[in-house]
Amino acid sequence: MRIGVLGGGSVGLLVARYLSENHEVTVYVRRNQQKQKLNDHGLFLSSHTTPCKVKALMTNELKDEECVIVCVKQPDMNSVLPLLSYMNEKTPIIFLQNGMGHIDLIRDIAQPVYIGIVTHGALRKSDHIITHTGKGIIKLANFSGSEENLSAIIHRLNNEFFPFQIEKDWQKVLAEKLVINAVINPLTAIFEVPNGDILRNTYLMNLAKELCREACYILQLDYMDQWNHVQTVANNTKENVSSMWKDLKSNRKSENEAISGYLVKKSNSAVPYTTFVYNSMKALEVKKGINE
Amino acid sequence: MRIGVLGGGSVGLLVARYLSENHEVTVYVRRNQQKQKLNDHGLFLSSHTTPCKVKALMTNELKDEECVIVCVKQPDMNSVLPLLSYMNEKTPIIFLQNGMGHIDLIRDIAQPVYIGIVTHGALRKSDHIITHTGKGIIKLANFSGSEENLSAIIHRLNNEFFPFQIEKDWQKVLAEKLVINAVINPLTAIFEVPNGDILRNTYLMNLAKELCREACYILQLDYMDQWNHVQTVANNTKENVSSMWKDLKSNRKSENEAISGYLVKKSNSAVPYTTFVYNSMKALEVKKGINE
Repeated sequence: MRIGVLGGGSVGLLVARYLSENHEVTVYVRRNQQKQKLNDHGLFLSSHTTPCKVKALMTNELKDEECVIVCVKQPDMNSVLPLLSYMNEKTPIIFLQNGMGHIDLIRDIAQPVYIGIVTHGALRKSDHIITHTGKGIIKLANFSGSEENLSAIIHRLNNEFFPFQIEKDWQKVLAEKLVINAVINPLTAIFEVPNGDILRNTYLMNLAKELCREACYILQLDYMDQWNHVQTVANNTKENVSSMWKDLKSNRKSENEAISGYLVKKSNSAVPYTTFVYNSMKALEVKKGINE
Repeated sequence: MRIGVLGGGSVGLLVARYLSENHEVTVYVRRNQQKQKLNDHGLFLSSHTTPCKVKALMTNELKDEECVIVCVKQPDMNSVLPLLSYMNEKTPIIFLQNGMGHIDLIRDIAQPVYIGIVTHGALRKSDHIITHTGKGIIKLANFSGSEENLSAIIHRLNNEFFPFQIEKDWQKVLAEKLVINAVINPLTAIFEVPNGDILRNTYLMNLAKELCREACYILQLDYMDQWNHVQTVANNTKENVSSMWKDLKSNRKSENEAISGYLVKKSNSAVPYTTFVYNSMKALEVKKGINE
């Protein structure tokens, strides 16, 4: 398949790297420097010595593809979505964002839309080098396409080293990932600790449980199920630096609005722990001079 | 008067420095190194070139004094209190701690006890050099002595450059200082910002207001009065590094238990913002390996 991957961050490069083994992949990036690097040197998985060949273009050079996978982060969605309107109306579009902030933005897209989440750990070492820090899976659910077509797409994308899986309910898939992100991301960023510390440090665990409780209350999920899930993820990625912590370190705007901000807005009653971390992330962004 | 100042931290050294102009002051310290420095070189106010003469002894060398001023921090109270039992039962003892954690500890002291708070800004530059970063006042109230005697003591201690003032109600004096500390201290320590940032950074101000609201609720104080007071103090000390932040920076145990911990324990209902900062300070102490 000709696949367009939108976004050259850690998720975009990871997806491009694995799919390029069986597909013709073009990565669409924002910076010319990254485009050059990818075209000149190829895309490296840091554990391999030989690069894979991917083509790189600028985001505004988006051409028709047989399938588009949108891997940009929530804060960049607004600049990317208008580009899709130039594409064939039958091209399936897959969205792999954290949070739920993008749902309202993608309702009016003409193409068949599928929504998913990524449980892989990935770290972008440079513009064309990616480390796969934890093997996971990509779960996809139908949003405005058809289950049959999604099933066919997954059949083509899925492979042993980079599995795809179909899910029934996109809301549940996103909600469960949102709980994980709403607990692990802000705490690790505020306290500058790797993911595992939310279990190793008793006092961070106290805060993690309260955040999990509030997120489950807002999203109507079972607390014990989700807390177990959070613990599993924190444990499986215990040495990892969360994306929010990475964003703060690199003076990049984080996904705070799409994660904690979304929950605060969605809630009908007070969610003080989530409100605390939401304000904390905003405060740290202001302190570091990261723009609104 | 022969005055014993217990504690060679910033408050102890500031008090010793100013009172030594009209009194015979002995500073009692925990480390032999500091004792030597003070005895060999004298006590310097960093804006002055000549030191004042104070005598320094180890805390366990405590001898009878005409007045004892206890300036150690809450976490060190337990090791200091037993020493007072060897003193004359008539010697007035003045306690200048933050928080309210010491109240239960001092109920059984045989001597007449007076309680107070310090609004000066002070920074200990070294074992025998102190900077007076903001002129304030020491407010004292009667606890188990008599108002007449306190009035007489204040008359002798008070001077133009280092004023003392009598207050009617020790609970109100401590409670108002506790609100200030419960708002400014943890936020500045967690976010590593000077005091003024709790007003300059909108998102820290959101959190500061909630902390102030909870503290006023627990201590039965008027929110608007206290929030105005917090703003005045944060503004007057806007470039200062709070004591909790200083403690974390120096890998010292902070007054978290006596401030936020006290409020969490005292409250009958949920105080999530205060609980959040309490757990945050504990988490940071664990992260830095600061002992329980």
